[in-house]
Amino acid sequence: MSLNTFGHVFRVTTWGESHGPALGAVVDGCPPGVPLAEADIQPWLDRRKPGQSRFTTQRREEDKVAILSGVYEGVTTGTPIALEIQNTDQRSKDYSEIAAKFRPGHADITYHWKYGLRDPRGGGRSSARETAARVAAGGVARAVLARMVPGLTITGYMVQLGPHKADRSQFDMGQVDQNPFWVPDAASVALWEAYLDGLRKQGNSCGAVIEVVAKGVPPGLGAPIYGKLDADLAAAMMGINAVKGVEIGAGMDAAALTGIENADEIGMGAGGPEFRSNHAGGILGGISTGQDVIVRFAVKPTSSILTPRATLTVTGQATEIVTKGRHDPCVGIRAVPVGEAMMACVLLDHLLLDRAQTGGVRGRIGG
Amino acid sequence: MSLNTFGHVFRVTTWGESHGPALGAVVDGCPPGVPLAEADIQPWLDRRKPGQSRFTTQRREEDKVAILSGVYEGVTTGTPIALEIQNTDQRSKDYSEIAAKFRPGHADITYHWKYGLRDPRGGGRSSARETAARVAAGGVARAVLARMVPGLTITGYMVQLGPHKADRSQFDMGQVDQNPFWVPDAASVALWEAYLDGLRKQGNSCGAVIEVVAKGVPPGLGAPIYGKLDADLAAAMMGINAVKGVEIGAGMDAAALTGIENADEIGMGAGGPEFRSNHAGGILGGISTGQDVIVRFAVKPTSSILTPRATLTVTGQATEIVTKGRHDPCVGIRAVPVGEAMMACVLLDHLLLDRAQTGGVRGRIGG
Amino acid sequence: MSLNTFGHVFRVTTWGESHGPALGAVVDGCPPGVPLAEADIQPWLDRRKPGQSRFTTQRREEDKVAILSGVYEGVTTGTPIALEIQNTDQRSKDYSEIAAKFRPGHADITYHWKYGLRDPRGGGRSSARETAARVAAGGVARAVLARMVPGLTITGYMVQLGPHKADRSQFDMGQVDQNPFWVPDAASVALWEAYLDGLRKQGNSCGAVIEVVAKGVPPGLGAPIYGKLDADLAAAMMGINAVKGVEIGAGMDAAALTGIENADEIGMGAGGPEFRSNHAGGILGGISTGQDVIVRFAVKPTSSILTPRATLTVTGQATEIVTKGRHDPCVGIRAVPVGEAMMACVLLDHLLLDRAQTGGVRGRIGG
Amino acid sequence: MSLNTFGHVFRVTTWGESHGPALGAVVDGCPPGVPLAEADIQPWLDRRKPGQSRFTTQRREEDKVAILSGVYEGVTTGTPIALEIQNTDQRSKDYSEIAAKFRPGHADITYHWKYGLRDPRGGGRSSARETAARVAAGGVARAVLARMVPGLTITGYMVQLGPHKADRSQFDMGQVDQNPFWVPDAASVALWEAYLDGLRKQGNSCGAVIEVVAKGVPPGLGAPIYGKLDADLAAAMMGINAVKGVEIGAGMDAAALTGIENADEIGMGAGGPEFRSNHAGGILGGISTGQDVIVRFAVKPTSSILTPRATLTVTGQATEIVTKGRHDPCVGIRAVPVGEAMMACVLLDHLLLDRAQTGGVRGRIGG
Repeated sequence: MSLNTFGHVFRVTTWGESHGPALGAVVDGCPPGVPLAEADIQPWLDRRKPGQSRFTTQRREEDKVAILSGVYEGVTTGTPIALEIQNTDQRSKDYSEIAAKFRPGHADITYHWKYGLRDPRGGGRSSARETAARVAAGGVARAVLARMVPGLTITGYMVQLGPHKADRSQFDMGQVDQNPFWVPDAASVALWEAYLDGLRKQGNSCGAVIEVVAKGVPPGLGAPIYGKLDADLAAAMMGINAVKGVEIGAGMDAAALTGIENADEIGMGAGGPEFRSNHAGGILGGISTGQDVIVRFAVKPTSSILTPRATLTVTGQATEIVTKGRHDPCVGIRAVPVGEAMMACVLLDHLLLDRAQTGGVRGRIGG
Repeated sequence: MSLNTFGHVFRVTTWGESHGPALGAVVDGCPPGVPLAEADIQPWLDRRKPGQSRFTTQRREEDKVAILSGVYEGVTTGTPIALEIQNTDQRSKDYSEIAAKFRPGHADITYHWKYGLRDPRGGGRSSARETAARVAAGGVARAVLARMVPGLTITGYMVQLGPHKADRSQFDMGQVDQNPFWVPDAASVALWEAYLDGLRKQGNSCGAVIEVVAKGVPPGLGAPIYGKLDADLAAAMMGINAVKGVEIGAGMDAAALTGIENADEIGMGAGGPEFRSNHAGGILGGISTGQDVIVRFAVKPTSSILTPRATLTVTGQATEIVTKGRHDPCVGIRAVPVGEAMMACVLLDHLLLDRAQTGGVRGRIGG
Repeated sequence: MSLNTFGHVFRVTTWGESHGPALGAVVDGCPPGVPLAEADIQPWLDRRKPGQSRFTTQRREEDKVAILSGVYEGVTTGTPIALEIQNTDQRSKDYSEIAAKFRPGHADITYHWKYGLRDPRGGGRSSARETAARVAAGGVARAVLARMVPGLTITGYMVQLGPHKADRSQFDMGQVDQNPFWVPDAASVALWEAYLDGLRKQGNSCGAVIEVVAKGVPPGLGAPIYGKLDADLAAAMMGINAVKGVEIGAGMDAAALTGIENADEIGMGAGGPEFRSNHAGGILGGISTGQDVIVRFAVKPTSSILTPRATLTVTGQATEIVTKGRHDPCVGIRAVPVGEAMMACVLLDHLLLDRAQTGGVRGRIGG
Repeated sequence: MSLNTFGHVFRVTTWGESHGPALGAVVDGCPPGVPLAEADIQPWLDRRKPGQSRFTTQRREEDKVAILSGVYEGVTTGTPIALEIQNTDQRSKDYSEIAAKFRPGHADITYHWKYGLRDPRGGGRSSARETAARVAAGGVARAVLARMVPGLTITGYMVQLGPHKADRSQFDMGQVDQNPFWVPDAASVALWEAYLDGLRKQGNSCGAVIEVVAKGVPPGLGAPIYGKLDADLAAAMMGINAVKGVEIGAGMDAAALTGIENADEIGMGAGGPEFRSNHAGGILGGISTGQDVIVRFAVKPTSSILTPRATLTVTGQATEIVTKGRHDPCVGIRAVPVGEAMMACVLLDHLLLDRAQTGGVRGRIGG
């Protein structure tokens, strides 16, 4: 991870501001010979697109991705893939207030300190709009994974909205696409709608917890000690806007387990070794076990709220600010496809990195 | 982060196995002209050293660090600093059982799958002994930070042992060094002792939560989008052995806050802008705010326990394993200085990286 | 240097094919607060632009650069700068012959082997058109250098065309922009014109040697052992299309010198230490001396020639090929601004990297 | 290449000074399962070892390498391999003169400027002694290459000593190990001996040109645009102490060729495509062709000579210096095994990097 690039050998570099002419990603190190078209990427962007329910920002962006390089006759060539998304709805509003004051919870003040200046229009580079570029890159990663590891699936969903946790005993993954929250517990939907509507009316917002699960991940991905799969996933998820916590498997609750409980015992199943539980979240010693890779992350409440908050002007005067405009009452909702995209990129990167070192050959157990 | 190296410009590469002849770190990119001797590093290693109470492994390692390069006449030269620690207590025990079976919760099976072979002696590279190299590197980072940012302090402590959370209302940092748990709440000590003694007698173990706080961090460290300070801290902490969750500031609990609660309002204090709360944990938009940088991480229970657990042999036979030997009943205890070391390395790296891009000049507010 | 990115902290990632819709560069790590507009970059692209004399390809490309991010109100913000150049003259010609046969001296066969497919239109990614992206990035580097090191200048020129070396005793840098060869020896122009016209009429081509000199480079840039300034310059120049040799200072001729001759003796001048010669080309031990940094590189003859050459078809049949189309008879001519751009990027990268490690403070001599 | 590390996925980090207690390398990313012992590495170090003829320094170093990690039961484990060489002959001489004055042609003055201090004992980090660590790392790379690409050979030899070029028409590779110069032209030996003896008696020194050839390199290694095989080789060779020029294939002479001459025509041979010449030096578009990979580099004359040269003291006084001590009259001689080692490391790195991206699958021609 180095400034605006991440990945070891499948490397993604993103650029663009919320209200600049466009934003994009350059995807480098992509294997050649993979069928790829805009139509393979666009559906993931459409999932993330704003304005799909009353619970996401009403900004209207087409978010149409264009592939500008690295694909010839519908197939990746192994050269860098430039992905570009035009910004079409940079509403010509008045940014003078945001330019003059620091919005609490936003990067306004830290950008000001670090760079001495900032692009105040929609948060500039720190806007969650940047995540569109990640989702586009994730679409490329998914297309490659689909070919290299056919059974692999990546699914993100919400497990908590504000203080309300979904009921895991009721999880039905078929529900995830059936509600505006991507929650697999249908019973939560009405409660969450009511809660979020209430917050919106108050000019308030809330946070969320998202879980992303990858099934079918081959064992052996990752590497000690700093190129660990879990370390890279942690960085990838913590790097998403507004994320404040990342968990693998049992996560923070692992602290409260005993060693007897936490041991994921191993038996021999029909297809090879089988673990009897997965507190490890599919990763031991930084390397995948072949079980589900399970990551969770917490997204803080949207900082742009209609309730006045104390702050300073750029000239150091005490003032208040109300952040008007079109904002998600819970940015966590739209973080679901972003988390999936980051998972896809990290897994592909480690698949390629493992292939570099080991050739993808696996040690045998029995047989 | 790339395999066994981390850092952008202050880069640490570690090597060594639990029972090899030695282990070490190469610290590259260190500023020149910083006074440095083994005596500056040794105290941090001594804090991490095993065998200091009945709650840590009884393995006896001197953990004496030697500086083999990069220092001349007591001062860093700007060339790589090689740090080396001899392994002196590689007890010549019988590893045949560990070699033949996979210990649940350990990296045995993932190393086997990935590499086709593994060094079973004490867990080889995946042993927590590797963290001695990090602590040594952290000692270098601390020496540099002490010179470049005189007021900066880094303090780690435990906030939870198994299910028992320390009482934050009773925190007294003066207590941290007064008990074997590095817990700032003196009232927790007796309870934790009893709990951990009970587990030990059962042949069991437990997890923990460690908090590391850096005070006096200048604003402006970090960078969007993937070189974020919080993303790098997340990777650094998640990369420590047995860590399953990482939080910044409010962490996973941020999900349950509302936007009104979560907004860290800003006022003008005597010395400049002041935040009225720190849910952000000192980081906004991936860049430090000048507030305390607060990281927490959960360590899973020690996987080496005296209670039999089901597993497989290398030849695929179902069996059980009891992990004898000298093990910490709670590895989280000794993770405290490791977390501090990682914090030191990441902060120094970002301090230098910021200096590269901005020259360390800060935007002004008022004045 | 990693696939399509180069630089340590000032990092340039390029993308695009000769006949794709566009090509571009993402410049990351740029210092904030630097005035930058397309008008600062365009002149360098104009120097490289084809079709300016009969000695360069007649392909007509406007090569208009657009800045899509990283600049706000005319000043760099410290976030990634996306530069984009539309391809406007992708003449809809018939590429079936190039697609079916491998052109000797081109990357056709190696791309085919490596990737299993290639974009044959104009050479795809391996086209010298990619160098426009480098020149654009170099324009950004120059704008930053102009601010950070006001006296620094970078000048490229040709010192050899085919077998004809320019006469160094006649060098007048004022001549460089006065002839189509960027040669500082006016007397060479007529000879070179005649030579190159002759080759063109034969359906032949020739190589060249370019020298790039940076004056005013501060001492202390670079680093042992692999981040050496000369090592990075060597990679930068060797990575330019068709380059087969790179020299620093005395270069290959250093082999024939004796130690007595080669010692650049040092005396004390009015402004500080002065070297009495510069066989070192401004770099000792991988670190700049403050003298002129002098790099030379040889460009092989244009491989696209009108004389038939033996080759294979993709199906392995022996055949011949004549490369029609619009080609430079000496690609070396247009490599001059490319070499300058690479010098600018490498110097700025090392300036920032040095600032990271040392803060830019210099050891004193005397005084 | 980043400070003291090189390589993309097979990464080598070196440390150590000429007169420190030891020097070493950490080799990361090495494939697992490769038989490796000190005995596989030592022969390469023995080739480089000083004191083997009157033409190399009389410093006596055993240069015994120890493997401290990453190998278990004689086989690489995939974890970092720490290689260490003790310095045994740090003669306790008086370094006060070198500490007080800058030796022309050495890095003394640039280290002083950059770091504000330097380790003057034997040149500290800038000593050619560092190359022992590269040679050790190269021994690891060779062991891996021997397994992954059985037919691959790497051979270095001298082609020029001072002004005297060996006669290529007389090259017999069987001669390379039969003379102190590693020159394949037996007729040159007597002449070179006489020339070098003459220089030694004068208190003078000379430069050299070394050629390193890799045979049996698979096609397809390397990558556009900045991860080119030739760019990485150029950096690797230019990064060796005292190197001032690097050439691939025809090298600087490519400038004087015409396109007709330079085209390496392609025909179909018994085993597949065959090139009729190799001006390209085995690399087209940054990617290997399967032909011999040919690199040459020029080493400047030894800067430590017995003839007084003008210089400054650290306090800025004009003075002279004679560099006494044990020095190679032509450091180029001992650069031969160093060049081989760098070739081995770069080729293995690209072999692994190619495997990451393409899986090592090659496009087919015919058949």
